[in-house]
Amino acid sequence: MKHKKPLILVTNDDGITSAGIQALVDVAKNFGDVCVIAPDKPQSGMGHAITVHSGIMVKKEHFPGTKAAFSCTGTPADCVKLGKYHLLKEKPDICLSGINHGANMSLNVIYSGTMSAALEGALEGIPSMGISLCNNHTGQSLDASKKVAEIMLQTFIDNKPDNNLCLNVNVPDIPFSEIKGIKFCRQGKGNWKESYNELKDETGEEFLWLNGKFENFEKRSTDTDLWALDNNYVSVVPIHADMTHYEELEKVKKWEVKW
Amino acid sequence: MKHKKPLILVTNDDGITSAGIQALVDVAKNFGDVCVIAPDKPQSGMGHAITVHSGIMVKKEHFPGTKAAFSCTGTPADCVKLGKYHLLKEKPDICLSGINHGANMSLNVIYSGTMSAALEGALEGIPSMGISLCNNHTGQSLDASKKVAEIMLQTFIDNKPDNNLCLNVNVPDIPFSEIKGIKFCRQGKGNWKESYNELKDETGEEFLWLNGKFENFEKRSTDTDLWALDNNYVSVVPIHADMTHYEELEKVKKWEVKW
Repeated sequence: MKHKKPLILVTNDDGITSAGIQALVDVAKNFGDVCVIAPDKPQSGMGHAITVHSGIMVKKEHFPGTKAAFSCTGTPADCVKLGKYHLLKEKPDICLSGINHGANMSLNVIYSGTMSAALEGALEGIPSMGISLCNNHTGQSLDASKKVAEIMLQTFIDNKPDNNLCLNVNVPDIPFSEIKGIKFCRQGKGNWKESYNELKDETGEEFLWLNGKFENFEKRSTDTDLWALDNNYVSVVPIHADMTHYEELEKVKKWEVKW
Repeated sequence: MKHKKPLILVTNDDGITSAGIQALVDVAKNFGDVCVIAPDKPQSGMGHAITVHSGIMVKKEHFPGTKAAFSCTGTPADCVKLGKYHLLKEKPDICLSGINHGANMSLNVIYSGTMSAALEGALEGIPSMGISLCNNHTGQSLDASKKVAEIMLQTFIDNKPDNNLCLNVNVPDIPFSEIKGIKFCRQGKGNWKESYNELKDETGEEFLWLNGKFENFEKRSTDTDLWALDNNYVSVVPIHADMTHYEELEKVKKWEVKW
């Protein structure tokens, strides 16, 4: 960390007016100078989308507890790129994303706007953390998640993370006193079993609405984020952008190709 | 493959009217029955976005060479979910995404709508391939890419891929006769050095427009997709959704946490 006070970039995928980003700023401001760059509207499920076919509008915002704050029409990943390459005078020391209302464990990381912002931070050489509460309801209390964010941020700073480190932190939806601690673990295997509801709008136009139920494919494994959360631990998974499937690579290398 | 003729789902991220999806259908129809489900508009840079906050509108389309075709207001990943869970009577045997005008090598896979559709296929147990031409200009000839798609699809079927296999195929932008063959390889490390152009619309409203230059961080490595493409080979990288950074996991497990 080059500052006495680290510069902390806070973003999220639920938009600048969400309770989650306010909670994360409340925690972060005790550890350093805070800047906020966040989407101007909710962007859940955006994955690692970036804005390539249109311009991005940026607006200065008043956000108590921060040195500077901006909203924009871009995606969560855009917010981090904007911060590093255009809006901030210096590179942030830490990038935080959240607190998200909704779990981002297992393969959900690829659908997650929250984690795309954190991962974009790590890609830009800013050690990053995304923090999610395992409850989708935006009214749900963030008290336990704020305490976890505080512990994790202290741990992060104390342990001098690598510049490309990105941690995916998920908090079980129980009171803080019932959380058993932190488990550093791997991403568990699972998937969504989807269905679609058929709906009509006022004009009779038909729509399909996605509905899904998550399935854990590794119920017996005890080293996954899925196990940790089921057993009242906070799960912490380091992630990166290398999606190479190395086991399959060894298999396909043996394929015969008729060129 | 349970059919004599495999059922092949074709999608893309440039939309149902793009030259690339027509090219891929032209190739696929020689190998099996083809269904198309694609976005109704271009969706480049969408990453693994899915539609969670609104309904999706679906429209039947006439698409020569296919058994059935639909466009929708959803993302590339939505198209594959819709196919598996709602629109198709049986599960496809193969999912193809492309042909994309624009490279999806290295870390670009996380920003890529093309590869999100292919990966969603593999997550749904449908062996999948995404095919991209390393040239962004939509007018660029797809002749070489079509020949590569044909060779890869034949190779894919002959070698009986695992249900969760997802291949990221990138084609160098040179005539087919100059392509040296296929390299099965890993995703190379690199990143975009971004800048933003400041623009104004007719009303004086200000916008930022993303501009970037890709940097290869592993110029000396010869086992990456970046090396293969630079050396006139088609790069083929098996990818998956496990983003756990296992080396970092071993490091962070040693962190002291003050709970």
